[in-house]
Amino acid sequence: MIEAQHAGVTSFAGVQRAREYVRMHADRFVRELTEFVRFPSIGAQPQRAGEVLRCAKWLANHLSGIGLPWVRLVKTDGHPIVHARWTRDANRPTLLIYGHYDVQPVDPEKEWRHPPFHPKVVGRDLYGRGACDDKGQLFVHVKALEAFLKTSGALPINVHCVFEGEEESGSSSLEKALVDRPQEFAANACIVSDMSMPAPGRPAITYSLRGSWSCEIEVTGPRSDLHSGVFGGVAHNPLQVLGEVIAGLHDDLGRIDVPGFYSNVRSWSAQERAYMRRVGPSDEALLRSAGARAGWGESGYSLYERATIRPALTINGLSGGYQGAGPKSVIPARASTKINFRLAADQDPKEVERSFRRHVARVLPPTVTARITGDIAARPVVIDREHPVIEAAIDACRRGFGREPVFLRSGGTIPVVSLFQERLGLPLVLLGFALPTDGMHAPNEKFHLPNFFGGIATSIEFLAEMARRRDLRPR
Amino acid sequence: MIEAQHAGVTSFAGVQRAREYVRMHADRFVRELTEFVRFPSIGAQPQRAGEVLRCAKWLANHLSGIGLPWVRLVKTDGHPIVHARWTRDANRPTLLIYGHYDVQPVDPEKEWRHPPFHPKVVGRDLYGRGACDDKGQLFVHVKALEAFLKTSGALPINVHCVFEGEEESGSSSLEKALVDRPQEFAANACIVSDMSMPAPGRPAITYSLRGSWSCEIEVTGPRSDLHSGVFGGVAHNPLQVLGEVIAGLHDDLGRIDVPGFYSNVRSWSAQERAYMRRVGPSDEALLRSAGARAGWGESGYSLYERATIRPALTINGLSGGYQGAGPKSVIPARASTKINFRLAADQDPKEVERSFRRHVARVLPPTVTARITGDIAARPVVIDREHPVIEAAIDACRRGFGREPVFLRSGGTIPVVSLFQERLGLPLVLLGFALPTDGMHAPNEKFHLPNFFGGIATSIEFLAEMARRRDLRPR
Repeated sequence: MIEAQHAGVTSFAGVQRAREYVRMHADRFVRELTEFVRFPSIGAQPQRAGEVLRCAKWLANHLSGIGLPWVRLVKTDGHPIVHARWTRDANRPTLLIYGHYDVQPVDPEKEWRHPPFHPKVVGRDLYGRGACDDKGQLFVHVKALEAFLKTSGALPINVHCVFEGEEESGSSSLEKALVDRPQEFAANACIVSDMSMPAPGRPAITYSLRGSWSCEIEVTGPRSDLHSGVFGGVAHNPLQVLGEVIAGLHDDLGRIDVPGFYSNVRSWSAQERAYMRRVGPSDEALLRSAGARAGWGESGYSLYERATIRPALTINGLSGGYQGAGPKSVIPARASTKINFRLAADQDPKEVERSFRRHVARVLPPTVTARITGDIAARPVVIDREHPVIEAAIDACRRGFGREPVFLRSGGTIPVVSLFQERLGLPLVLLGFALPTDGMHAPNEKFHLPNFFGGIATSIEFLAEMARRRDLRPR
Repeated sequence: MIEAQHAGVTSFAGVQRAREYVRMHADRFVRELTEFVRFPSIGAQPQRAGEVLRCAKWLANHLSGIGLPWVRLVKTDGHPIVHARWTRDANRPTLLIYGHYDVQPVDPEKEWRHPPFHPKVVGRDLYGRGACDDKGQLFVHVKALEAFLKTSGALPINVHCVFEGEEESGSSSLEKALVDRPQEFAANACIVSDMSMPAPGRPAITYSLRGSWSCEIEVTGPRSDLHSGVFGGVAHNPLQVLGEVIAGLHDDLGRIDVPGFYSNVRSWSAQERAYMRRVGPSDEALLRSAGARAGWGESGYSLYERATIRPALTINGLSGGYQGAGPKSVIPARASTKINFRLAADQDPKEVERSFRRHVARVLPPTVTARITGDIAARPVVIDREHPVIEAAIDACRRGFGREPVFLRSGGTIPVVSLFQERLGLPLVLLGFALPTDGMHAPNEKFHLPNFFGGIATSIEFLAEMARRRDLRPR
C-alpha cells in the first residue's frame, strides 16, 4: 500500500493533490508559522538558551505532527539540531533540507513597529524576528513535505531535514557533527532557503555566497577610567585608538588595507561580469533596497559586484566610554568593536584571520594593548549553474512561481553550507524566498506571504522533479 | 551678645574652639558625609531628577541645622540651587563658597568594589560616587561654618553658600541666575574646593583651569540597519565614518587637526614653564596616577603642560551597532560619539564650536549626514598667584595642614567658575582636597578622610584670616 502511494506521489495527480492541500490549509500554515516565530530563539545570547531549546522542541514536535516517522533532537555543546528523516527507497535520491530556527538579536528594539516576538500579519506580510530568516523559509519545505505526506502518505524522494540553532552564531555544533559523523547526513543533494529573490513573484537561484570571518577587538589603555579634564591630552584613549585602527582599514580607493588580504581573491571573466550586469541588480536598485543615499566601496566594481564577488569589511558594533544621557568627562579604560569580513571566492578565513591579526599588531600604538577574539569562520561557496539539480530547481521555479528564475550571487554567508559542499560533496540548491525589503537582520523583519506560498509550491515541484530525473538517481 | 561673639570669633581662642569642636565631632561628620553621599544625585540623568531634588533638600536642611539662618532652595529650569547666607557686618568681607551636590554617572558599574551609593569607610578612605567630587569637598566648608556657629554663635566674615546640582552637566541654571541676578551673589571673593592636592598632607592651590566644550555627533547612513553580508562593501557604515572622523582629529604630532583651533591658545614664558617644571608633577608621576603605560599627546610639551596649558580633545563615548554577546551581521543605520574639548587660556568655547562644526562639515563624506549637538561650554580660568585672597589661603594651608601649599594648574574645568571671575569680578581661591588617586569621575571614587579634616581646619583658618586682613576689607 505504501509502495503504491510512493509510486503515485510523483505523478501529476500526486503533485496536484499536494498543491491543492496547501490551498485548503493556507490560513492554518500562517497561524503555525506565527507560532514558530513567537519563540525568541536568539541563539547568540546565552540568556536565551531556554527559549532556543523550547523552539527546537516545538519544531521537532511539529515535524512528527506532519507525519515524519523519525525525528530527533540532537544534543550538542550548544543548541540542539533538529534532525528528521524519511528514507524509504534506496533507488531514489536523498535530499538534505537545511535551515535554521535561531534568529538574529532584535536591537535596536525601539525601531520595531510591532514587538519582534509578537508576530503580526499586516496586509500580505508577516512581521516578526525570524519571519523570513530563516523560520519562514525553512517552513516552506516543512509544509511541502506535509502536503505530500497528508495527501499521498509518502514523499517523492528520500529526505533529511537538518535544522540547526546556531546559524547566526557560526554553526559550530552542526559543523562538528558533519565532520565527526558525516554518514548520518549522507545525501545526494542539499537545498537551502535562507536568501533573497529580487521581487515578489520573481524566483531566484543563488549561485554564490561569500565566506565570513568575525572578530571582536578589545583595546585597553589606562588601568581604569580617567577624568578627561585632568588627564585629557596625556593618556591615549582606547576609543580614539579604535577610531584610528578602523580608519586605517580601508584605503582611498575603498579597498581593504590589510597586507595580503586580496592575494587569493578570484578574478572573474569579462563574460561572467557581463552576465552579472545583465541579470543582477543595477546600482540604483541596490541603493534603493539599501535605503542609502550614495554608493560606497571598492572602485572599479559595480555595487552588485562589490556585494558579491568582492570581499568586504564591516564594523558591526563599537562600544566604549559613556553612552547614557548628557555628557561625562571620561577617558575610558577600554573600548571594543565587532568586525566582520565577507570573503570572496577562494579566500580562506584562516588566512584572513592571520593577516588581520598581523596587521593590528603592526598598527597598534604602544600606549595600549589589544585582544582579538575570533568568531564565525566560513568559506565562500560557488555553485555550478549547469548541474542537474539546478536544472530541477529551474523547472520547479517555473511551475511554482510560473516564471523563469534569475541567477543571483549573494553577499551573505551560511557558514555550514560550504561544509555540505566540501565535506559531504553535495551539490547545492540555494533557493531564497525573502525580498530585499524583508529586513533580514534589521528591525521590522517580515516575510511576504505570497512568497511563502510560492515557495511551498516550488518545493513540492522540486521534490517531484528530483524523483523524475534519471540524472539525479543515486548510482 | 551676638556682636561680642562676632568679635571673638576671629581671635586665636575662637579659632581654637572651632578646631577643637571638629576633633570632638569627627565621627559624626563622617556619618553625615556618608548620608550625603548616599543620594544618587546624578544630575545629567533625567530619570534621577527626584533623587537630585531629595539630595538638595537634605543639604538645605543640613545647612539650617548647623545654624545658618537664611537657607533657600532656589527653583530653576533644571535642578535647584541650594543658597544659604550669613551676612551680619558690612565692614567685613563676604566670601562666596561654591560647590556642587550633583555627581557623575557611575558606569561602568560592575567595576565598583562597593555599590557607588552605599558609601563605605575602608581604612582612612570613604568610598562612594561623589565622596570627593564634590560632596566631600563642599562639606569641608559646611563643617567649618558649623564649627564656628556652634562654638562662637557667629562666623568671622559674611558668607554665601552656593551649591548647585548641575555642575557635571554644564551649570546652565546657575549661570543663568548669575547673569540674571548678579546682585544676589554679591561678594568679595569666591572659594571653590573641587580639585586635587598632590599627596596626603600636601595642600595645593590651583591657579588655572581649562575651559571646556562638549558635543555629541550622530552620524546617519542607510535608512535602517542593513545585513552586513548582503550590503557589506556597498553602503558606507556610520561607525566607520565616525572612526575616520575621529582618526582625523589629531595629526602625527598629537596636535588637534582642526583648522584655526590653536589660533588663540596663550603661550607661556620660559619662566612660567620652568616654574611648572619645578613645582608640578613629573611625567612619571602623572603616568603613575593615570595608570597608563606610556605618555601620549602633543609633542614639545611635558605631560603636565599637555594636561593644563595645552588644549585636549577626548572621545568620551562611542556607541553604534550591536553591542550584545556574540556576533551580529549588521551595518547600523546610525552611530554617535561624545566628544569633549578642554581649552587652554584665551580659547573661547564659541570659537572652538564654530571651527569644529566647520571641520566636520568639510570632512564628512556625502554618503552620510551628521548632527552635532553642543553641550557644556566653559571658558578657561587663570588666577593671579599674588592676590591678597591667595595670600590668605596660603596662610590657612600652613595652619590647617602645617605645610606650605604648592601651586598647581588643573586640566579640569568648573564651568561656572569663569563666570564668578568674569561676571561677578570675584577673586578666586581654588583649594582642592582630593588626591589624584581618589578617582574623580571613575569607578571606586573615594575621599581620603585625613584630607577631609585637614580641609576643615584650613577652611576655619581661611575664614578667620580673611576677617583679619585689612586688604580684604570691602571698600
